[in-house]
Amino acid sequence: MTVEDARFGLKRCVTLPGPLPLDGGGTLTPVEVAYETYGTLNADGSNAVLICHALTMDQHVASPSPRTGKPGWWTSMVGPGRPIDTDRFCVVCVNVLGSCMGSSGPASVDPATGAPLGMAFPVITIRDMVRAQALLLDHLGIANLAAVIGGSMGGMQALSWAATFPERVRACVVIASTARHTAQNIAFHEVGRQAIMADPRWNGGDYYRGEPPAAGLAVARMAAHITYLSEAGLTEKFGRRLQARDAKTFGFDADFQVESYLRHQGLSFVDRFDANSYLYITRAMDYFDLAEEHGGRLAEAFRASRARFCIVSFDTDWLYPTPESRAIVHALNAAGAPTSFVELSSPYGHDAFLLHSPELERVVGGFLRAGA
Amino acid sequence: MTVEDARFGLKRCVTLPGPLPLDGGGTLTPVEVAYETYGTLNADGSNAVLICHALTMDQHVASPSPRTGKPGWWTSMVGPGRPIDTDRFCVVCVNVLGSCMGSSGPASVDPATGAPLGMAFPVITIRDMVRAQALLLDHLGIANLAAVIGGSMGGMQALSWAATFPERVRACVVIASTARHTAQNIAFHEVGRQAIMADPRWNGGDYYRGEPPAAGLAVARMAAHITYLSEAGLTEKFGRRLQARDAKTFGFDADFQVESYLRHQGLSFVDRFDANSYLYITRAMDYFDLAEEHGGRLAEAFRASRARFCIVSFDTDWLYPTPESRAIVHALNAAGAPTSFVELSSPYGHDAFLLHSPELERVVGGFLRAGA
Repeated sequence: MTVEDARFGLKRCVTLPGPLPLDGGGTLTPVEVAYETYGTLNADGSNAVLICHALTMDQHVASPSPRTGKPGWWTSMVGPGRPIDTDRFCVVCVNVLGSCMGSSGPASVDPATGAPLGMAFPVITIRDMVRAQALLLDHLGIANLAAVIGGSMGGMQALSWAATFPERVRACVVIASTARHTAQNIAFHEVGRQAIMADPRWNGGDYYRGEPPAAGLAVARMAAHITYLSEAGLTEKFGRRLQARDAKTFGFDADFQVESYLRHQGLSFVDRFDANSYLYITRAMDYFDLAEEHGGRLAEAFRASRARFCIVSFDTDWLYPTPESRAIVHALNAAGAPTSFVELSSPYGHDAFLLHSPELERVVGGFLRAGA
Repeated sequence: MTVEDARFGLKRCVTLPGPLPLDGGGTLTPVEVAYETYGTLNADGSNAVLICHALTMDQHVASPSPRTGKPGWWTSMVGPGRPIDTDRFCVVCVNVLGSCMGSSGPASVDPATGAPLGMAFPVITIRDMVRAQALLLDHLGIANLAAVIGGSMGGMQALSWAATFPERVRACVVIASTARHTAQNIAFHEVGRQAIMADPRWNGGDYYRGEPPAAGLAVARMAAHITYLSEAGLTEKFGRRLQARDAKTFGFDADFQVESYLRHQGLSFVDRFDANSYLYITRAMDYFDLAEEHGGRLAEAFRASRARFCIVSFDTDWLYPTPESRAIVHALNAAGAPTSFVELSSPYGHDAFLLHSPELERVVGGFLRAGA
């Protein structure tokens, strides 16, 4: 590549002809892929690192989001001299298929009608997201990855990468994640989907010319947000403290700080996320069961892999608790894959993977350096 | 009393003149109280047992519900020869203030306007519910209680009884409950309230002449229902099993059994419960903090009590986990109250208190017999 190569840099978007075969049948074509790259791909293309994002995140892993103006969502982890060192690696982060930050999703316009696809967009899977990323890597001339890294749903993609494209992954980092969604995981997502679909403005997904189902989406976000925090963390952060008042009002205002916080989380989310994308991506997560794709044996998913693995969990994460990570580690061991596993201590529950954590940064940085 | 005393029996409702002073200020008058009694009050009135019900339950503790036709909600515990033995005790169960099964609540008609009160009904507390029950006991000629017994929100009322009317309570049984709502408890309730209020049919609480906010109430119930079950219980009961189909549909139908179950829970709930009552009762629970009512020291709440206490928790209950019961026990010990405490093992989470459980029945029956 030359420094002028327009394929590399921030705020990139490319239309790939596809066709992208989908797990649900059929194909997607063309495939819009929004992404960012940081650092420089070396001559033999051996220093590419793919970072996979979580449910509501985006490709702006280390640059400000054009929508919110806020810094990238993992600036503590990604950058020059950071654990995922952009002086050394060419980091790629791709908006997942089904999302709403530039990649193909339900808000994409159907060329046949000129209107947004809405629920005509096909239901996709984690593996479909990964296949779309692989198409992009082909376009970028990246044959294989020094590492694929992700937390939460990003970890599901990282696992799926190792299983789907074993010859293209040399290292795999999976943080606060799982190899399959449990009944409780599905239950929380279903509450969110029903909240969106209960909003009359959702209108069967056809709302792009009018008002979006903001109230339903806000409720979905509130419910999900509780699962991202620990009970102890909520108690420490809010307890039963009142919000800007000396006494209970004996009404239905947000008397408690935790109510005010949750309402804010719900309201601010609707400004940056599309309700239909929330439906599609939660569905993809609920469908995720890596063992099921491999005859019911998780170890089979890693049989062809030659990658090193690093699995990280947090002790207060009750969304994807440590036993879910242990199940991955057991399968990797059974498959003979070199694996390091650590459970980190944090008061912050599932959200810990997004927060500045010297321990997490040491684990990820050390694992990547060990592969040098 | 005589056997013809119309105050006693099933499906009773009485209008008490009050006034009932409320924690939020002001008074309620008159006070409608719907209740049932089982068994016969003895001559000295010493064998009365009050059973306090949970958030969405009712006075039909051991008789079929007129609304649903289903058996009483605690028939394994209450009846002739049962742990709460109606051959021995005169059992009273009162629909709580704010509910919708006959006691005063937001669906009650305002005599001044002839229309339902809706949000003009005052915000009430657990202690207000208890004071209304005390008015009923006065009406029934029951000076004091051989025992007050409750699970979940019923346990909050039992605790409040011992603290508010120490001279009227000789024994107190608190099952799967807490002395205060935590930030996480409040957060889940707030999601439910916002789901109801986001439904346009809620209309500021004024929906009684039209369609109720069923969609919002169903979402609220779904979110709450997850907290009533354990993760392990959900996995055992549903796992990732599909609902009446051989393969995923790649759509948004209820592919998974857990989705189908939750949707059913939501839809069946709206047939039996009033959305405004759900707002008011969840608010009362969130406001509950027994220590706060006693200078911030929980032991002070029990200082005047002469009652025996029995505290029961379940190991998989993550709504009101065992440490919440332990905090009550520590306070009771500090107050010098005779207390027995047991944590029972169950796969069923918070819901365990409502299910047939030989261990629970042995604990409650034994505790009541020990006071004979």
